[in-house]
Amino acid sequence: MARIAIDAMGGDYAPRAIVEGALWAAQEYNVGLELVGRKDELEAEINRIKSIGYILSDCGTKGHQRKIHIDVDKIDYTVTHASEVIGMGEAVGQSIRRKKDSSIVASVKAVADGRCEAVVSAGSTGAAMAASLFGLGRIHGVTRPAIAVTLPTMKKPVVLIDGGANSESTPEMLVQFAQMGVAYAKHVVGIENPTVGILSIGEEEGKGNALVKDTYPLLKQLNEEGKINFAGNIEGKELFINKADVVVADGFAGNVALKVTEGTASMLLKMISSEFKSDFVGCLIGLMAKPFLRRILKRINWEGFGGMLLLGVKGISVIAHGRSSSYAMKNAVRAAVEGINNDINAEIGKNINE
Amino acid sequence: MARIAIDAMGGDYAPRAIVEGALWAAQEYNVGLELVGRKDELEAEINRIKSIGYILSDCGTKGHQRKIHIDVDKIDYTVTHASEVIGMGEAVGQSIRRKKDSSIVASVKAVADGRCEAVVSAGSTGAAMAASLFGLGRIHGVTRPAIAVTLPTMKKPVVLIDGGANSESTPEMLVQFAQMGVAYAKHVVGIENPTVGILSIGEEEGKGNALVKDTYPLLKQLNEEGKINFAGNIEGKELFINKADVVVADGFAGNVALKVTEGTASMLLKMISSEFKSDFVGCLIGLMAKPFLRRILKRINWEGFGGMLLLGVKGISVIAHGRSSSYAMKNAVRAAVEGINNDINAEIGKNINE
Repeated sequence: MARIAIDAMGGDYAPRAIVEGALWAAQEYNVGLELVGRKDELEAEINRIKSIGYILSDCGTKGHQRKIHIDVDKIDYTVTHASEVIGMGEAVGQSIRRKKDSSIVASVKAVADGRCEAVVSAGSTGAAMAASLFGLGRIHGVTRPAIAVTLPTMKKPVVLIDGGANSESTPEMLVQFAQMGVAYAKHVVGIENPTVGILSIGEEEGKGNALVKDTYPLLKQLNEEGKINFAGNIEGKELFINKADVVVADGFAGNVALKVTEGTASMLLKMISSEFKSDFVGCLIGLMAKPFLRRILKRINWEGFGGMLLLGVKGISVIAHGRSSSYAMKNAVRAAVEGINNDINAEIGKNINE
Repeated sequence: MARIAIDAMGGDYAPRAIVEGALWAAQEYNVGLELVGRKDELEAEINRIKSIGYILSDCGTKGHQRKIHIDVDKIDYTVTHASEVIGMGEAVGQSIRRKKDSSIVASVKAVADGRCEAVVSAGSTGAAMAASLFGLGRIHGVTRPAIAVTLPTMKKPVVLIDGGANSESTPEMLVQFAQMGVAYAKHVVGIENPTVGILSIGEEEGKGNALVKDTYPLLKQLNEEGKINFAGNIEGKELFINKADVVVADGFAGNVALKVTEGTASMLLKMISSEFKSDFVGCLIGLMAKPFLRRILKRINWEGFGGMLLLGVKGISVIAHGRSSSYAMKNAVRAAVEGINNDINAEIGKNINE
């Protein structure tokens, strides 16, 4: 049975939502847990769930809460005490060095020490990345780990890599991101023969900044060698039309793309809600339209996709959203389980070193 | 009376939509036109409109078309023959040199020669930029022109600069983009005391790539000198929440942000439409919800914002969307008229050189 280390203190709704989501996932995906954080707080949460026998979740619908029965006694878990928490705003390097007993560092250690196969954290992304990188080390051959994000589209999901692990990249790094992204898309997301493109401005070869222009021929070369299916440049507006299954970007552009997607969707949904509320008839129609809009919300909700994977480190490291609910946390653990079951790191190693 | 040069052959629906939109704008904003393109084709369009006395437009609603009465005889226009057209896919440098008599180059010449104050083109963005840059030259002190784009939000519009004119930028260029963007936001968009931020990953100073990190202290310095109101780093998800009125980015990241916004909105609207079509009740509710959704479409429709301005060149250069309808073209001309009326170039000169 796989065992997952959970940074139970990380995230806006920690420890409650984190403990709830982790127990839910352990029950649903049949995995063991090592819950890491302030022991008294975690045990209080666990005992509460044990005594009432359920948790409440909207399951990503933003609608009514339903009861999810949790049988704590049947779950294989341990609690590991860690007295400190690294907050969202803290300087990463400093706090990891200073806070020797932080929940994120202790969670990563559970993987480094071989007790767990994966670590999941909804805390500071920077801290989770740094702790994973220093604590786990890199897969042989990997220059720099990168964040892979799965985004919904009308048809099949698209994988964006790097979602923000590296603020500066080289062409050689982007090539590795492509190779890691393909392994992830194929063996975790389940896309057969995934195609790869580079995020750029303008479709034709020769369009883009220096980094893109220098990366293009390297990916073209891999395509000719039969190692990847290269789809060329992908413009921002083509991200969601499945022109490529894996879209490679430096961490800066990738993070901008990711966050702009979030910002645009959020604004549009607010606009829709405000238009319906503009008059009485609108309110009525809006009420009737709600179940349909809720289905869309569920389709695009990041909570359903769980966390982002930090690809390239030894062991699986899942970085969940800071605002993770128990439902989001459950899916973040699912992402870790899929990574383990499909032996993603072996596949990455093959793609990078063959 | 201001006079606008129109590249009447540029854009997917040229020359029809371009001629229609230009005449509509000339009538509505009381400006003169120099329509540039294949004389026989343009005159055929003008004569058609003259004989029926109206054009049809949905006015950006994506709904039913209504008649817009156009009194061609009251409009002050001339037609200038240009035999060639630069297509969307053509290599910019080459085609501008080879096609000596292209409509975009001839339109820019109308401004360079002093017959017009502004040029508007819905043709190849690259060609329009290059033709404007070489044909008009730069405002004294400006290192590199940049594209300013106005984006809708829930409250007031936000100006993104650079939307893609420069694929590589320096910190000094970004500072000038900020100064030009502020002039534009204040004197054209009408935002008092506009604040400026840098598009980045992470909110705090020190977050971002090398370019952002090097630009931050320069903008902070200008803020301390009382020359701009610096709002710090802006994350992609904060683009639409009015944390800054002007968001500065290098042309690569700016274009990615712009296009991802377009791609996300387009996907979401398709999802909404497909959800409503999923069953009979959905179709009925969707039908009732249509007027509300159409209002949102109108709020976020780029057509209403007209074109992007290439700031920093002598004379006004408006780059309209390749898919411009007559309504979009009318608004692109309006953007040019606002640029002229508010003497944007004098304001840019002041901000750059003071």
